[in-house]
Amino acid sequence: MTKVAKTSVEINPLLANRWSPRAFSEIAISDDLLIKLIEAARWSPSASNLQPWHFIIGKKHDETYQKIFETLVEFNQLWAINAPILILSCGEKTGKDGNPLQTFKYDVGQAVAHLTFQAISDGLFVHQMAGYSKEKAIELFQIPNHFEPLTVIALGYMGDPLILPSRMQVSEKAERVRKPLADLISQNIFGTASSIINKLK
Amino acid sequence: MTKVAKTSVEINPLLANRWSPRAFSEIAISDDLLIKLIEAARWSPSASNLQPWHFIIGKKHDETYQKIFETLVEFNQLWAINAPILILSCGEKTGKDGNPLQTFKYDVGQAVAHLTFQAISDGLFVHQMAGYSKEKAIELFQIPNHFEPLTVIALGYMGDPLILPSRMQVSEKAERVRKPLADLISQNIFGTASSIINKLK
Repeated sequence: MTKVAKTSVEINPLLANRWSPRAFSEIAISDDLLIKLIEAARWSPSASNLQPWHFIIGKKHDETYQKIFETLVEFNQLWAINAPILILSCGEKTGKDGNPLQTFKYDVGQAVAHLTFQAISDGLFVHQMAGYSKEKAIELFQIPNHFEPLTVIALGYMGDPLILPSRMQVSEKAERVRKPLADLISQNIFGTASSIINKLK
Repeated sequence: MTKVAKTSVEINPLLANRWSPRAFSEIAISDDLLIKLIEAARWSPSASNLQPWHFIIGKKHDETYQKIFETLVEFNQLWAINAPILILSCGEKTGKDGNPLQTFKYDVGQAVAHLTFQAISDGLFVHQMAGYSKEKAIELFQIPNHFEPLTVIALGYMGDPLILPSRMQVSEKAERVRKPLADLISQNIFGTASSIINKLK
């Protein structure tokens, strides 16, 4: 199954073909491939090159996977159980001087996007979740005070939507939607239409 | 000039070749190309598909560019003046229910990474900055309360490092560095070495 974004102009096919499935195949992910994904995240940019990201990686049937799975809200457990890999992304909250780092969430988001590009490039799919218990994650993984768990990342090869509970099969096959491009850009004053949009008319 | 990352395993060349230059060429960026970059950001994933990103786009010599430039700290002004495009990225701080959105910075970081990926794919380079005055940005662009300015993005084709002040030429040519991959991943308990790293030895 493919779900190519209906873009208003052509973009890189890796980006147009990316989406967040809930049905994953049982095919296991090799350690070589996991290293490649983390390596892609590693070379992501960050404020002052502080690299405030950390990844706790669970492989299906290991203890780490089981713990990450336990933190998920019930709705996410229903489908994430199919993913061969679950990763908990964490961010470092303070800089070298001990002061709060304003950009750590933004930077970790970028790093996970880089991991995602590499995943798509290798035929994998990624589905990120905010629906999990941070408190439980902090407890189960003994996450230190200066780090914060951010998202749970399910990844693997795409599976058959029929393995999903029936109510999830609808959204799995639904068209991808986004706000109009014109709503995302301004010039001069926030909310004032940008002239570059005229090109689209 | 190329600065390919010395990766421990091979990754997608678009990611390996990406870096954040300070020397940009004078070549202007077409509106078609700008739309492509925003379109890439637009199809980025976000928590509950809320798409909490907004971009204020300045083209060299227009008023928006001048305003974004004014918000930059002096060090960044010294080199960013070369970039044909400056974009202020903003994030929506609250969800549809008016409650704080925990993931907006993370989501905007991802969207800018998608924009960056499209930029590299089209031969452009991106340099993101946190070194600017948020207060001045809020004032100059009348940014509403439920949005927060996050980063300034300089973009364009790569330029000759010799256009930079001499102290910046050193870092422009310096090798790219990152923490060791092993430091970024754990299993079971935060800080416990992951077994996938054995593959690298």
